[in-house]
Amino acid sequence: MTQYFTEDASVETVNARMGKNINPRLALVMASLVKHLHAFAKEVHLTQAEWDYGIDFLTKTGEICSGERQEFILLSDTLGFSMLVDAINNRRPSGATENTVFGPFHVDGAPELPMGSTICLDGKGEPCLFQGRVVDLDGKPIRGARVDVWSDNADGYYDVQQPDLQPKWNNRGVFVTGEDGAYSFVGIKPVSYPIPDDGPVGQMLAHLGRHPYRPAHMHYLVTAPGFEKLVTHTFVGGDTYLTSDAVFGVKSSLIAPFNQVKDGNTAWVSPFDFVLTPV
Amino acid sequence: MTQYFTEDASVETVNARMGKNINPRLALVMASLVKHLHAFAKEVHLTQAEWDYGIDFLTKTGEICSGERQEFILLSDTLGFSMLVDAINNRRPSGATENTVFGPFHVDGAPELPMGSTICLDGKGEPCLFQGRVVDLDGKPIRGARVDVWSDNADGYYDVQQPDLQPKWNNRGVFVTGEDGAYSFVGIKPVSYPIPDDGPVGQMLAHLGRHPYRPAHMHYLVTAPGFEKLVTHTFVGGDTYLTSDAVFGVKSSLIAPFNQVKDGNTAWVSPFDFVLTPV
Repeated sequence: MTQYFTEDASVETVNARMGKNINPRLALVMASLVKHLHAFAKEVHLTQAEWDYGIDFLTKTGEICSGERQEFILLSDTLGFSMLVDAINNRRPSGATENTVFGPFHVDGAPELPMGSTICLDGKGEPCLFQGRVVDLDGKPIRGARVDVWSDNADGYYDVQQPDLQPKWNNRGVFVTGEDGAYSFVGIKPVSYPIPDDGPVGQMLAHLGRHPYRPAHMHYLVTAPGFEKLVTHTFVGGDTYLTSDAVFGVKSSLIAPFNQVKDGNTAWVSPFDFVLTPV
Repeated sequence: MTQYFTEDASVETVNARMGKNINPRLALVMASLVKHLHAFAKEVHLTQAEWDYGIDFLTKTGEICSGERQEFILLSDTLGFSMLVDAINNRRPSGATENTVFGPFHVDGAPELPMGSTICLDGKGEPCLFQGRVVDLDGKPIRGARVDVWSDNADGYYDVQQPDLQPKWNNRGVFVTGEDGAYSFVGIKPVSYPIPDDGPVGQMLAHLGRHPYRPAHMHYLVTAPGFEKLVTHTFVGGDTYLTSDAVFGVKSSLIAPFNQVKDGNTAWVSPFDFVLTPV
């Protein structure tokens, strides 16, 4: 071990500095982080001006953060890092519904509603019936599953982004399944929207030649005793941004049919079954 | 190329999203950054709770930043990343004086003083004569070299950290060499001090079983027409923290003698020659 820092032994020098009695998981994670960060700088021969730019970028990312804005999460999302962590931690058997990113717009405590209720409270958008069943890997209905749903409104904003313009709990609700495992509710056919792009992450996307849009989707958090928590979306088939989601959230298994209805109370119907994995 | 995100193809999926007509250097740097960040998460199987912790850490790092405090630079410094970037960009021929980190405490515009002047203005500390020559790789004196020097005071603080307690330009000065390439000035024998450790980086160091101290050093910025800029320190031989500098700034070639003086105007003398590399 070199005592003093050298370019060649940079990783070993830094990691050898850790104390002997620290949390072993912390030691493992930090040693790997240092190794990969140093490998990055060496691989690209990072210049001093680029380091300056990086420090300034992180500083500006910190400056725009507030109670309502989390730019570091946006950064993680747009680099595919959030989806990767989600994927690593939610490997599921074939047939089980896949996870995707939770996103920043879930709110605890949405009202529990009777099956079939309408969650769209602002009268905007094209009404859509969402329906299906919550089942186990054998297709057996799961009773008592909580189906917590949320989406943007027809203008592309969640209620919490427009507290003065939208009714509280607009396009949100919780539905609990009975014996048949079935769920149904009336929302709107979701619309695509940009992630907040007036900060450093938006500038990064512009420099990378990327747009800030997410394809239209309905959020689901499905929980049931004895089963793994499912955090997912269903995506509107045919959406322009399906193959270029700014946060890489789309999986092909999560693209749902949205069928136009001729005679009915809603303009659209979107069937989708959720298959939960036992814990 | 997979259209949708998968754990296996995460890097390729994210990097394929970049536009075709973007800055090629940006494309190269970002592709490498994404590759190494994803490799880190995969290698350690980063958990969702650890990701949450990381987001919170970066957010707190951003919150403590101000005009006088740059916690992201401290983070880079304490992970050896600043020294690595410095090393990559300042590979020098054998015999040339090595670089080390610039640090956050340099101030432009320090007074240019006659050779031999005293830069310690607060009367604290043990007077030390710093002297030597600025030469080229052949040992030939360099005329007109600007030797810009700065150090903490005897209490371990730079003047800019204590604007109400220390005289302006305390322990700072600029000396310009003549025909003989010689420089000399009277400062104090520097003392070791901790980097600011009341924020997230200080907490990180504590969790890693590391102390926040830097070994005692004098800062130098030496410039001369036709030569590479030299950013370096000289370190006090024998300092307790030489092999555990919190920011990894020590190189063995930069450890200088500090010789006690029996009869003289100063208690110490520290000889050191600076060898510049032609551009």
